[in-house]
Amino acid sequence: MSDKKVLIVMGSDSDMSVMQKAGEILDEFGIGYDIKIASAHRAPNFLHKLIKESEESGVKVFIAGAGMAAHLAGVIASLTIKPVIGVPLGGSKLKGNDALLSTVQMPSGIPVATVAIDGSKNAAHLAVQILAIEDEDLKEKLDNFRLDQEQKIIEKNK
Amino acid sequence: MSDKKVLIVMGSDSDMSVMQKAGEILDEFGIGYDIKIASAHRAPNFLHKLIKESEESGVKVFIAGAGMAAHLAGVIASLTIKPVIGVPLGGSKLKGNDALLSTVQMPSGIPVATVAIDGSKNAAHLAVQILAIEDEDLKEKLDNFRLDQEQKIIEKNK
Amino acid sequence: MSDKKVLIVMGSDSDMSVMQKAGEILDEFGIGYDIKIASAHRAPNFLHKLIKESEESGVKVFIAGAGMAAHLAGVIASLTIKPVIGVPLGGSKLKGNDALLSTVQMPSGIPVATVAIDGSKNAAHLAVQILAIEDEDLKEKLDNFRLDQEQKIIEKNK
Amino acid sequence: MSDKKVLIVMGSDSDMSVMQKAGEILDEFGIGYDIKIASAHRAPNFLHKLIKESEESGVKVFIAGAGMAAHLAGVIASLTIKPVIGVPLGGSKLKGNDALLSTVQMPSGIPVATVAIDGSKNAAHLAVQILAIEDEDLKEKLDNFRLDQEQKIIEKNK
Amino acid sequence: MSDKKVLIVMGSDSDMSVMQKAGEILDEFGIGYDIKIASAHRAPNFLHKLIKESEESGVKVFIAGAGMAAHLAGVIASLTIKPVIGVPLGGSKLKGNDALLSTVQMPSGIPVATVAIDGSKNAAHLAVQILAIEDEDLKEKLDNFRLDQEQKIIEKNK
Amino acid sequence: MSDKKVLIVMGSDSDMSVMQKAGEILDEFGIGYDIKIASAHRAPNFLHKLIKESEESGVKVFIAGAGMAAHLAGVIASLTIKPVIGVPLGGSKLKGNDALLSTVQMPSGIPVATVAIDGSKNAAHLAVQILAIEDEDLKEKLDNFRLDQEQKIIEKNK
Amino acid sequence: MSDKKVLIVMGSDSDMSVMQKAGEILDEFGIGYDIKIASAHRAPNFLHKLIKESEESGVKVFIAGAGMAAHLAGVIASLTIKPVIGVPLGGSKLKGNDALLSTVQMPSGIPVATVAIDGSKNAAHLAVQILAIEDEDLKEKLDNFRLDQEQKIIEKNK
Amino acid sequence: MSDKKVLIVMGSDSDMSVMQKAGEILDEFGIGYDIKIASAHRAPNFLHKLIKESEESGVKVFIAGAGMAAHLAGVIASLTIKPVIGVPLGGSKLKGNDALLSTVQMPSGIPVATVAIDGSKNAAHLAVQILAIEDEDLKEKLDNFRLDQEQKIIEKNK
Repeated sequence: MSDKKVLIVMGSDSDMSVMQKAGEILDEFGIGYDIKIASAHRAPNFLHKLIKESEESGVKVFIAGAGMAAHLAGVIASLTIKPVIGVPLGGSKLKGNDALLSTVQMPSGIPVATVAIDGSKNAAHLAVQILAIEDEDLKEKLDNFRLDQEQKIIEKNK
Repeated sequence: MSDKKVLIVMGSDSDMSVMQKAGEILDEFGIGYDIKIASAHRAPNFLHKLIKESEESGVKVFIAGAGMAAHLAGVIASLTIKPVIGVPLGGSKLKGNDALLSTVQMPSGIPVATVAIDGSKNAAHLAVQILAIEDEDLKEKLDNFRLDQEQKIIEKNK
Repeated sequence: MSDKKVLIVMGSDSDMSVMQKAGEILDEFGIGYDIKIASAHRAPNFLHKLIKESEESGVKVFIAGAGMAAHLAGVIASLTIKPVIGVPLGGSKLKGNDALLSTVQMPSGIPVATVAIDGSKNAAHLAVQILAIEDEDLKEKLDNFRLDQEQKIIEKNK
Repeated sequence: MSDKKVLIVMGSDSDMSVMQKAGEILDEFGIGYDIKIASAHRAPNFLHKLIKESEESGVKVFIAGAGMAAHLAGVIASLTIKPVIGVPLGGSKLKGNDALLSTVQMPSGIPVATVAIDGSKNAAHLAVQILAIEDEDLKEKLDNFRLDQEQKIIEKNK
Repeated sequence: MSDKKVLIVMGSDSDMSVMQKAGEILDEFGIGYDIKIASAHRAPNFLHKLIKESEESGVKVFIAGAGMAAHLAGVIASLTIKPVIGVPLGGSKLKGNDALLSTVQMPSGIPVATVAIDGSKNAAHLAVQILAIEDEDLKEKLDNFRLDQEQKIIEKNK
Repeated sequence: MSDKKVLIVMGSDSDMSVMQKAGEILDEFGIGYDIKIASAHRAPNFLHKLIKESEESGVKVFIAGAGMAAHLAGVIASLTIKPVIGVPLGGSKLKGNDALLSTVQMPSGIPVATVAIDGSKNAAHLAVQILAIEDEDLKEKLDNFRLDQEQKIIEKNK
Repeated sequence: MSDKKVLIVMGSDSDMSVMQKAGEILDEFGIGYDIKIASAHRAPNFLHKLIKESEESGVKVFIAGAGMAAHLAGVIASLTIKPVIGVPLGGSKLKGNDALLSTVQMPSGIPVATVAIDGSKNAAHLAVQILAIEDEDLKEKLDNFRLDQEQKIIEKNK
Repeated sequence: MSDKKVLIVMGSDSDMSVMQKAGEILDEFGIGYDIKIASAHRAPNFLHKLIKESEESGVKVFIAGAGMAAHLAGVIASLTIKPVIGVPLGGSKLKGNDALLSTVQMPSGIPVATVAIDGSKNAAHLAVQILAIEDEDLKEKLDNFRLDQEQKIIEKNK
């Protein structure tokens, strides 16, 4: 089993600047992860293989970022029973409104946990929260992160 | 080779009342077709098999109707090089605005020929037009259909 | 510690008809849960107390359903480090478009795992997937559920 | 009792460039105010304390500016019976459409007086109008402001 | 001086069913008010006269409900320096999205305190909050209203 | 009587760059016009006087350009029985979607002839078409304009 | 020359219930008109002939009502230099939002005077206003209509 | 008969930068095509002639790109029974949302095969897929294109 608990997938390498922020948050919390480029439409077989192999190797949470008719998270969700977090990307003419609806409006039985448009950081935070349920160490890190967040705001007012 | 040139696929049997209108148009033009229920999310393997087998058996055009985060047409388009016509269905709270964007905003290389929300009839008309390119008999039927349409309007004014 | 692993919260008892479907899915998977009515706006202190006590008593995942300027899931997320799943409710004039944006567009650091408008069933499915990460029994139930889903679709085509 | 009658709160210091315009208007009318950074999500306890202490020290009107899933004004409104004016901020991908709906679509009993996207100046004008109800001096300043506004337009036409 | 502190104006008598709920809330709090039908477009002179006379007779807060291109609240705001609360009405094909934008997106200098689509109750609550700033009796009633609201929610959970 | 047949009004001098294009089209067709800055909200009395005097002096068509909650065209329409052409301006965060709905969704009895967002040129073309109904000279100019338009397109293809 | 000064055209006989209200208003003002069913898409040649013949026979204003991708008014505008008034019809899933944008967002040179969704009455009122520019009798009727409108509102308040 | 199987039409030469990408894709697949500027509104007779002559000379698929109230594809579709592919262009204030609805929401009988906003490449891909139905050589090129696409993604992950 690999120590990579999260797989970050994006539809195109042009999405890297947004999606790598998810990796940076996971790094902060000391969670192993991998980043892959895969497309539900242009590389369906590669995507199927990637998800199946990742699930078998120990990935516990998937994060998928895609724009426009963003099918990536939904297609991944159809291939695994692990939680899939969808990040609608806002690079299109419609500013991510298309990607948001394509990601969040999933039919019954195959959920995608959707975060904000370009919300790659929160995708990682959600992954951390999911993994922390059964991990006391992560739970403590999250408690500290929350205290830090509040403390920073308090200090800005001084 | 089957004589079924069009495959109509829908995400759920609750979509039948809208999608069977596509079949009725194909009947009018004497084009063989099949209707199937398949889901990109709930039955991905069945869908892959269905599309591959249909393409091999002679299907030349696919029509896919789905609502909400309507991935069905896009996923079919990723599995075949035949033209895929997408019908965004308007049964959701967002009245098909979600399905429209999820169907039409496809990335480069994998087009979906999208028609109006609940536009199943036009999906069939488009399939007929595609098949008529190399079929003089169909072409004549289309010409007559257009003449009939105009004639009906002229008569309503009398 | 209670055996209730999920807390379902809604903003008003008029939301019960939609939100109880989340409970029915959790029942199918044999997961203990509680259902509460609480409002981020009309009962902020009660909500704070409810979330803190629930977290202490062993709740691992929160599901929050609210309509209009749906702040409920976001406010719960600010009070706990457990995953919070938000269900935007579509009862308003704007058909849930308001609730969707109010639920999903969370700022960095405090994610809400958002599902479809009125997607209470998928909120429950997502909770099951999260709890199944470290629960082999649940994992098996999920695998069976997926197989059943696909089987039902295959049978509808016969 | 403090002489600060208005408290301006914003979700992040990046909102200062827009929100400080509210302060400038209050300065023009000679109304004492304070500006604070606080977050409904990242610093809920600090926010609760800030609102309670401000209300006790004599604040009569709150102005809250926030973007995306803008819960700030609504959460403040749940903590005070003073009027709360909400400024939806337009910095997100959705240009403030998300913040507008998250701010204005409040449930019965807890109103937020919402102004235009990035309408921080009008938030201050509204606060002045509210405070002027029982303040003859402010009332006169408002009358003069309106006359000046009209005069400026008349002069532009010369 | 009249004892009517609030004037409720609506664009058409077909808006009465929604707008009279504002009156009911004002009745609960013992605030005198008047209800009038007036149109910014169809009766501009009558509207000007009504607002000027109302302001002189002691009205302190205006509530205006209108649908479609809802100019009523904005036009009233141009005629008085008293706070004007706008209620966008959702009776049109666009479900109040038109009225919301027409009411809230006011230019600098002439604010309208906008509440939710069809949010006539909250318009009244906001008026009460504004009037309570300098009225200890109303303030106490508001405190009790808030406690009642929270108590009702607590009891629903029993 | 003045020879100015069209009055172009705009809500702010920042709208001049868009609205002066209407004047340029009127110049091309040799139609006398005046341009004024006036605000339905900030200068209501000046606006009333301007419209009444313009109508008396012989203005036959009004063109009004405004952004955001664009009430200008509607308020002018309430003050005259001459045709009023509304130009929704797209300078706001919502890109003119607010101004479009505020301009076009007028109640029965008080129409505004609405053109495209920032469509000041077409406002002038529409004014020319209206004035040409009873003016053979203008009619001929319009016919020539149309022929020129078509000719330019034909030549671009060479 | 015919005494029919207005031609009302609609895309389908199912639009009659909305569009005949335009005729009723024209009747009230004693303006001769004709009503026709014609489609830019299904009967393009018939439409061209209809518009050309109507213009020659003395029609001075065209009113066109259409839903969905409402091209009718724009296509008529391309065939005549008379003013064309477009009525976006709200019968589709998107409630006329599609028809509104398809009607109003015309390119430079070919304006359509657009009224509200389903605003057939106002289309007629606009036609009356256009025809009244050079018709003292109509002008007087319009003045009276406006006075009646205001009077009705004044009486409703008694 | 000409060897030009596709005609690319656009509403204005400012659309060339987007639409020429369709031509580049057709070049890649070795398909003859022509590019023309034509306007449904400004040059209706030229457009009619162009479409009729193109159809007679052997054009099998039309591609039409237009922005705003994009009637071009629909009007072409009314003049031919060949498949018409519509590309909504996103250059307007509304970012192509207007052009998308104006292109896709066609009435029954006259379909337009709509692709994504600014999706000129996919318009060409769809044309290739349509032409490949009866062309083994093209079919092989499409299969290779798909393999290349997948291969490129696989290599990006190395």
